[in-house]
Amino acid sequence: MTDVHFVKGHGTENDFVLVPDLEAIHPLTPEQVVRLADRRSGIGGDGVIRIAPTESSSDDFVRQQASSATFFMDYRNADGSVAEMCGNGVRVIAAYLREHGLETADTFSVATRGGIKDVRVTDDGFAVGMGPWRFTDPGAAKDFGHDTLVHVDGHGPFSAVSLDLGNPHTVVALPPDSDLDDLDLSHPPVLNPVAPNGSNVELVRPLGPGHIRMRVHERGVGETRSCGTGACAAALATSFWATGQVEDHDEWIVDVPGGRLRVRALPGQHVELSGPAVLVAEGTFWL
Amino acid sequence: MTDVHFVKGHGTENDFVLVPDLEAIHPLTPEQVVRLADRRSGIGGDGVIRIAPTESSSDDFVRQQASSATFFMDYRNADGSVAEMCGNGVRVIAAYLREHGLETADTFSVATRGGIKDVRVTDDGFAVGMGPWRFTDPGAAKDFGHDTLVHVDGHGPFSAVSLDLGNPHTVVALPPDSDLDDLDLSHPPVLNPVAPNGSNVELVRPLGPGHIRMRVHERGVGETRSCGTGACAAALATSFWATGQVEDHDEWIVDVPGGRLRVRALPGQHVELSGPAVLVAEGTFWL
Repeated sequence: MTDVHFVKGHGTENDFVLVPDLEAIHPLTPEQVVRLADRRSGIGGDGVIRIAPTESSSDDFVRQQASSATFFMDYRNADGSVAEMCGNGVRVIAAYLREHGLETADTFSVATRGGIKDVRVTDDGFAVGMGPWRFTDPGAAKDFGHDTLVHVDGHGPFSAVSLDLGNPHTVVALPPDSDLDDLDLSHPPVLNPVAPNGSNVELVRPLGPGHIRMRVHERGVGETRSCGTGACAAALATSFWATGQVEDHDEWIVDVPGGRLRVRALPGQHVELSGPAVLVAEGTFWL
Repeated sequence: MTDVHFVKGHGTENDFVLVPDLEAIHPLTPEQVVRLADRRSGIGGDGVIRIAPTESSSDDFVRQQASSATFFMDYRNADGSVAEMCGNGVRVIAAYLREHGLETADTFSVATRGGIKDVRVTDDGFAVGMGPWRFTDPGAAKDFGHDTLVHVDGHGPFSAVSLDLGNPHTVVALPPDSDLDDLDLSHPPVLNPVAPNGSNVELVRPLGPGHIRMRVHERGVGETRSCGTGACAAALATSFWATGQVEDHDEWIVDVPGGRLRVRALPGQHVELSGPAVLVAEGTFWL
């Protein structure tokens, strides 16, 4: 039996088991990740984040980031598979690095399998550059304001627009007579046309200028309390519907079931996500 | 912020946050219990078990057990409410007490709001006396072999018999052409007649003499990986169907989704449940 030090944390209730491995001696097998992430026989989390020195990675693409980022976010899905990164997870690893004095500046970078992520300390937690975004079908979105029709829980069809933020999103504008809270998301929304690789689906209700509320159905997972890239997609889509375009430095508040996120458009069609990161416990797992 | 020491453990994947409070200084408010049990913003568990000296309890009924049981299982549901006890949970507190040398004998007792629970160390973990059982409607069960008809996932009606083990159970005998694994338990089974206070429903498949497999829908919760009193009810009901009676010292193996339990009939229409208890982690929660 191996003793593994862990920290449990969450960003808007997207939760993670952190495994600080500063000497790179706990590579974590897929089976060990599954055990840590299991909500009943383990600690439980949406994913596991091993924190390792960037220069210790055996992945060339990651190791090349060592000049900009001291630490590597070795992100694993709860099923044990490797993933590029997770927007809410970057804030949680940032909180750990700051709290333990491993990063002391107000801006720093974290290495990920999806490339360098730039982090900035904010009043409510951390802001993270999420990279570029684009409309999946720019022509359709421009001409009709939507490119997809979506049925949710037998209701609809609702107009929706699809965006790519490294992963696919379909953002649904609910008509005024549909209550965001009433819809049952226990089954996946039905898209027409079907998304070739599946899609995360965001249901959006505007609350006022630059302020929306959303629920999200994550592809292959089900409804979740928060989705970082989904919050960005929802903000960008509603801005497009409201004004026909997205302006650099536009900002939105996005309320998700797990809390409040902020989204900001950056020059070059990039986007930044900010929000809280909370570390709730630390201990030893008998792996 | 208060630092609270916790241990996470499970019995056949019925999982608990243990809070050892040997000096009785952490009474735990309902709000604190909810935070600890929350699977995303806390540690996560089906319940929280505070471990306190029996003599420290403000509850007269509990404190009177101090002559037989040094420690009190202060069991709380994940929603913060107080509960009498939990069969799988008694094994997990027993594992903690033994591992930390707080109980050293092979038989000892634990105080609960449901009265003294006698614990015995076994090869596979711990055996716990679960108290008396009875058929809810003895006449109906005797005359017809069932007292209730149950629809599950649109299938049925299936014959079922109802038992009381301190909480209500309805045990369903699946016909040979129904596959236990195929039924969808995401919605509660429908009982006719309706159980006045609701009922836990066990779906049972005999595997051989004294060996059954079951799934369980817990009232107010949904499908779970294990239910201790449900395993007892399922064993007793199938024994009744097989032989028309339950003999003292009859034993059954009951396979639940979370592992293997053993049930034994004791004299005086009492029943004993045994199975594993696993402690997986310990640490500090920043409450």
